Amino acid sequence: MAEQKVHRASTTAPVNIAVIKYWGKRDPSLNLPTNSSLSVTLSQSDLRTHTTASCSALFPADSLLLNAAPQDVSGARTQACFRELRTLRKQLEDSDSSLPKLATLPLKIVSENNFPTAAGLASSAAGFAALVRAIADLYALPASPTELSRIARQGSGSACRSLFGGYVGWATGTEPSGSDSTAYEVAPASHWPSMRALILVVSAEKKGVSSTAGMQTTVATSSLFRARVESVPSRMQQMEAAIRARDFGAFARLTMRDSNSFHATCLDTDPPIFYLNDVSRAAIAAVNGINSAAGAEIAAYTFDAGPNAVIYYLAEHAAAVAGTFKGILGHVQGWEGQRGRAVEDAGAEGATVDSRARKVLEEGVNRVILTGVGEGPISVDEHLVDESGEAVGGR
Amino acid sequence: MAEQKVHRASTTAPVNIAVIKYWGKRDPSLNLPTNSSLSVTLSQSDLRTHTTASCSALFPADSLLLNAAPQDVSGARTQACFRELRTLRKQLEDSDSSLPKLATLPLKIVSENNFPTAAGLASSAAGFAALVRAIADLYALPASPTELSRIARQGSGSACRSLFGGYVGWATGTEPSGSDSTAYEVAPASHWPSMRALILVVSAEKKGVSSTAGMQTTVATSSLFRARVESVPSRMQQMEAAIRARDFGAFARLTMRDSNSFHATCLDTDPPIFYLNDVSRAAIAAVNGINSAAGAEIAAYTFDAGPNAVIYYLAEHAAAVAGTFKGILGHVQGWEGQRGRAVEDAGAEGATVDSRARKVLEEGVNRVILTGVGEGPISVDEHLVDESGEAVGGR
Repeated sequence: MAEQKVHRASTTAPVNIAVIKYWGKRDPSLNLPTNSSLSVTLSQSDLRTHTTASCSALFPADSLLLNAAPQDVSGARTQACFRELRTLRKQLEDSDSSLPKLATLPLKIVSENNFPTAAGLASSAAGFAALVRAIADLYALPASPTELSRIARQGSGSACRSLFGGYVGWATGTEPSGSDSTAYEVAPASHWPSMRALILVVSAEKKGVSSTAGMQTTVATSSLFRARVESVPSRMQQMEAAIRARDFGAFARLTMRDSNSFHATCLDTDPPIFYLNDVSRAAIAAVNGINSAAGAEIAAYTFDAGPNAVIYYLAEHAAAVAGTFKGILGHVQGWEGQRGRAVEDAGAEGATVDSRARKVLEEGVNRVILTGVGEGPISVDEHLVDESGEAVGGR
Repeated sequence: MAEQKVHRASTTAPVNIAVIKYWGKRDPSLNLPTNSSLSVTLSQSDLRTHTTASCSALFPADSLLLNAAPQDVSGARTQACFRELRTLRKQLEDSDSSLPKLATLPLKIVSENNFPTAAGLASSAAGFAALVRAIADLYALPASPTELSRIARQGSGSACRSLFGGYVGWATGTEPSGSDSTAYEVAPASHWPSMRALILVVSAEKKGVSSTAGMQTTVATSSLFRARVESVPSRMQQMEAAIRARDFGAFARLTMRDSNSFHATCLDTDPPIFYLNDVSRAAIAAVNGINSAAGAEIAAYTFDAGPNAVIYYLAEHAAAVAGTFKGILGHVQGWEGQRGRAVEDAGAEGATVDSRARKVLEEGVNRVILTGVGEGPISVDEHLVDESGEAVGGR
């Protein structure tokens, strides 16, 4: 009975960390942003979501399992992705009657992250990118990453950027439908492969304001927000030029300024939103100390909607940047991996960081993640749903 | 020998805490601001500078003693005040030959604060206001507080507002000479005498960026600063209207928004300037909790260039506001004074503040100062220089 068959496709998708931040929607239901943004896709060796999309007449209804926990699929964002992908599959089926009729079958999606949820890393970008890519593969859609980014955007805005590897832009677009608000490749990972990222995972005090709620409060109440939005287009141009020219100094200055501008508009929100805490401030002081000692910007901090610091640097400065942090944070988890072993403790060089900032970092950072620029979604043969339709544990 | 005589005049002057902040100079040498500002003058019972200005041919040169420590008087700011006041005295002497010739005599200024320097309260405003007022009295100048505010502004910008009591504006002015950048009374203390202020003195980690240096870096580098400057005129209008109408809710909302806007432009400065720390954030959370529980803005936080919180409230809400803080901070110094005894510990009402914020406040606040709106400079008979010209200890 063909209709009892379980159809499957699996993919992994990466996390991305923006250097020009997305903050504010001009259309909340379509996740259309007030400004363009730009991110670096991080290596899936260190951070990735692994997702299997399956469909079968055996399944009673659409379902989604994330890290073994059932998720609600009735939300508008997940439904929008399912609907868009099924529509594309239906068009294929209508044009070729030999194709199996998958568009109407219930979906079972099973997803796992290879990083602890407690790390406080925004996983929704990788999650929706993997979900959309896996279903598109299941449906054998001829859609390009750009077309899929338009769909993933409706699941989670920044997910659209995780459809590409390397250096990725997301155009704000002008169409009310959002048809031109899609991601695009600024440069592949191979263009500038020496980009590294050190993530300082900060002990979370408690969940702050969610980015979904926070950004719309900023749009509604901040008197400085408009000035930020107006400053982004020229910063985007400069950032794309810096990436094309592999100019790390310019990349670093723009990254830090944009992070500061974003958090400034959060502070100007009513009531104010604080994502940076004293540990975040100490990370900023440490980066400033490292750059001062080097006489150039060799490290760049950026912060999303939480206290974790993401510090970009080039492989050639691993000792001066990651090594300095290893000298302070050698006792925490995360230096064990391949990249961690390659980083020498800068020891006395850690003296470029003032003693108070060292102490706050020692006490406030839980673990580190060492990674670098990486590729976009990758199709894999390891399925998280077996041939009979049961979810199976990943690695 | 008349010229051996020691001429003396003494005054006290108040601290003021702005509710629309001064940040940025359009002319650094004249201390001309980029935007108008507005402050509440605090009671001198709690916070004041006591200054004696004296002059005599006995003195070898101009000198200034602050809290028993000799200060440099050669700086441009102090020199500008001396020069302006001597010029006015000289005009008097030229028009009336019976007057003693004081303009050319060396000045000895002795000054004492009644609050600990370690409290990290900006004392330069009270200091320059007292210096200018005392010399003006010594010289028997017919100058109005407005005229003196023009002179004190050249010593320290915000000092101009300490020439008046109550609710005080400082107009940015348009003249390049600064002649119209003076302070003015929005309303006397008696118009709205129930205004109270609770200052939470936070353990200083270390001296942050000075406001003099910080504000000009903001002007030069923040892309959001212009938007702040443009938003101030309407906020000034609304604040003056709120004060005239004794509308505490509007006063509170404007005060908190302006403080947040100011600190947002600090964060948007390159490199970023952080005056707020985790204790400051806890104070903000506490005020938000108190206001939420009350269902109205009955407390308003504001922060100058440092982590100390100043919380304004009305006497009728002393229990709900100061009492809540006393329930958390009853163990620290500062509740002993008359106003402190009048504040009942709100006890269980402290539960309006979440436990994490309570803990951070308990650990991070060193002492409190309870005060309220007060009068401008007051002439006093107690001199800090004796008849022979020696500095004498104050109380």
